[in-house]
Amino acid sequence: MRMTDIIMKKRAGEAHSPEEIKFLIQGYVSGEIPEYQISAWLMAVYFQSMSFTEAGYLTRSMIDSGKVFHLKGLKGPLVDKHSTGGVGDKLSLILAPIAASCGLQIPMMSGRALGHTGGTLDKLDSINGYSTALSEKDFQEIIKKCGFAMTGQSKDVVPADRLMYALRDVTATVESIPLITASIMSKKFAEGAQSLIFDVKCGSGAFMKTQDDARALAESLVETGRSLGRKVVAVITDMNEPLGKMVGNFLEVEESILALQGQGPEDVMEVTYRLTAWMLVAGGICTTVEEAETLCRKKIHSGEALQAFLENVKLQGGDPEELLAQVGKRRSKYSRDILSGRTGIIQSIDSFAVGLAGVTLGVGRNKTEDPVEPLAGIEFHKKTGDRVNKSERLCTLYGEDPDLLKEAARVVENSMVIEESSTIKKNKPASLILEEITAL
Amino acid sequence: MRMTDIIMKKRAGEAHSPEEIKFLIQGYVSGEIPEYQISAWLMAVYFQSMSFTEAGYLTRSMIDSGKVFHLKGLKGPLVDKHSTGGVGDKLSLILAPIAASCGLQIPMMSGRALGHTGGTLDKLDSINGYSTALSEKDFQEIIKKCGFAMTGQSKDVVPADRLMYALRDVTATVESIPLITASIMSKKFAEGAQSLIFDVKCGSGAFMKTQDDARALAESLVETGRSLGRKVVAVITDMNEPLGKMVGNFLEVEESILALQGQGPEDVMEVTYRLTAWMLVAGGICTTVEEAETLCRKKIHSGEALQAFLENVKLQGGDPEELLAQVGKRRSKYSRDILSGRTGIIQSIDSFAVGLAGVTLGVGRNKTEDPVEPLAGIEFHKKTGDRVNKSERLCTLYGEDPDLLKEAARVVENSMVIEESSTIKKNKPASLILEEITAL
Repeated sequence: MRMTDIIMKKRAGEAHSPEEIKFLIQGYVSGEIPEYQISAWLMAVYFQSMSFTEAGYLTRSMIDSGKVFHLKGLKGPLVDKHSTGGVGDKLSLILAPIAASCGLQIPMMSGRALGHTGGTLDKLDSINGYSTALSEKDFQEIIKKCGFAMTGQSKDVVPADRLMYALRDVTATVESIPLITASIMSKKFAEGAQSLIFDVKCGSGAFMKTQDDARALAESLVETGRSLGRKVVAVITDMNEPLGKMVGNFLEVEESILALQGQGPEDVMEVTYRLTAWMLVAGGICTTVEEAETLCRKKIHSGEALQAFLENVKLQGGDPEELLAQVGKRRSKYSRDILSGRTGIIQSIDSFAVGLAGVTLGVGRNKTEDPVEPLAGIEFHKKTGDRVNKSERLCTLYGEDPDLLKEAARVVENSMVIEESSTIKKNKPASLILEEITAL
Repeated sequence: MRMTDIIMKKRAGEAHSPEEIKFLIQGYVSGEIPEYQISAWLMAVYFQSMSFTEAGYLTRSMIDSGKVFHLKGLKGPLVDKHSTGGVGDKLSLILAPIAASCGLQIPMMSGRALGHTGGTLDKLDSINGYSTALSEKDFQEIIKKCGFAMTGQSKDVVPADRLMYALRDVTATVESIPLITASIMSKKFAEGAQSLIFDVKCGSGAFMKTQDDARALAESLVETGRSLGRKVVAVITDMNEPLGKMVGNFLEVEESILALQGQGPEDVMEVTYRLTAWMLVAGGICTTVEEAETLCRKKIHSGEALQAFLENVKLQGGDPEELLAQVGKRRSKYSRDILSGRTGIIQSIDSFAVGLAGVTLGVGRNKTEDPVEPLAGIEFHKKTGDRVNKSERLCTLYGEDPDLLKEAARVVENSMVIEESSTIKKNKPASLILEEITAL
């Protein structure tokens, strides 16, 4: 087999065999195939795409390029959730304890904030003492004890993706549905999940700006999963305005605790219940999503979900009592309110702009090596559709630097559109759940 | 400027600025831009192509990447011819002395045989004593004295093309019209030509198999030349059967001498006269191709073209008298005739197959480092359209190895289609000149 022939085949729009994909990935990881051939192939894939079956072969070969967590000590069902990234997206922190309290086991390996989107790992790191660098043994032990564990991604998992993602980043080949699919799926399956629920976010604050693009990715994830014989569900959710009232690291931990205490914002809970319900269906615990949603609500009201979360905090090194005592109290050194310039209705809050303001405050980062500010962030007192009076507080920004706070405040202020007329329509969708695609 | 943005721009089908192309070529040659970015860009160019203007920028930046022969000691007009490669294509050896005897100066830097196509340099090297490795000073001196010189390509000329061609070869990005255009044109202009005549061959033995593909390349060469303010003519010629009666190195030198003596085969002379005539028009020596063709014929009949050739042979180290004496006599150790299996008319001779048989005999080579056999080759006694009797000689093969001779004979025999019926049409076109595209 010659790499040039493989490139030529994809260039002509032909489908690859599993052997060709295996040859390519193994050769790439071992260094036998040079990067200049891989990048030419990546660009050919960008133009000619791949079938779901080919994306399945790619996912499989990428999984095989490194360590696979078999989690044999766990009985399962092992179901994980993956979000394509958003602003104010703290759902993992709420959904994992609910799902665990319903009997699922969730082996959650998460990433860090990058660009305008937040990262679950940075949020967890804002909890005093909480460790997101678990050994494989501890990871399994904690899942066994409380149903879920949350840790960073192991460097040994899917080295092909680490190499290829870096190469795609510098060769303008990131935006390819089958490449994105294989990148996401290979990591999740290598980390031990048996079934996967995807939250494909769509809108200004998401990677996919349009519903058509989001649907293309959702379909690819589901169908590629099907070609691998896995249960996969993709839920397309709206990400035009930030999710919930809090955007930040510790701020979002707080909002998650409130959610587990039954006081979560409506938008957060709608998406959380739906995603968790699909996890329960995929894991075989419930038959329908309606039945599953009812069970999830019960686990919130009974306090079992909160208990699972607090137990996890303890097992991963945190202090549950201290954490609960900090809710609403642990804040950055500086804060700044944004007041409404007029009386009217909030028409929209641009989540992309809010995400960028978050980066300014230190919620997220531009480069992977930059540090984050655990306490910085934005607390919205009003969201889209809410009436506000002139000079009423719209939101409060928290940060460690008054100048950056001022800069971020300007961005957040501009991100909010308030119209005085009461006749104009709200931009808020009736539901954040836009579409659901399943392979069960 | 960032290379990733440049790739993204081409990926989106946008046009590059001259600055972007310059940045890319300079960065590539200096090693600042890694090959994996260049190859991704090459694949994007393969899919999105480039305008003639962009191909002009690329040609210009590639020329600027290395040494440029200014040939300031020559008065000109300096006109060169380039063929896209064929089988039995010895036209340079005939056309250069005719054009020189008409008053043009031809700075000819040629390549070697590769694959099924022959190379001018290998043909010239078959002349005892003839040097194809001239210094820049000797190159200019010889052109000054006899109107033309023929040498190998300098390694200092267009290093960007040497690098990029090697990269294209291993990344399946060879077949891109603007990249082919810039590769060919940059070398020819850097070697000192002011105007260029292209023989774009078309058919089984050519790089371009169809007339549509040949036309696309011809148009690109002419229009890119126009965008650079150069006079360029592209003549599309038929390359379905080998050109002339001889395929080989010294065999083709012989046929060239016969042509200069007024005994050239009809097909060879038709294309030679036409290409040379366009050179004379481009060089301003004649006003019309008809007038120019008449002048070319005169230079053959008067013997002036032959004299120019023999003078060049002497100046480049050969012995004209010895050479003339060798015509028809200097042959390989072994030979083998192919006899016709039937009485009929030759319908076609597949030049691609004949070219491959040539490689078997040692006329050409598969790898650039392989040696060639100067005396090996194929002499056709009959060509397409000729009547043959059963057991009459179709051609004679020459070689240094009886086994290879046998192998090649089988291929050549299969390349010739002879039909017994006298009613079927000949495949031979009325003229080998299929189309002409000019920018004058």
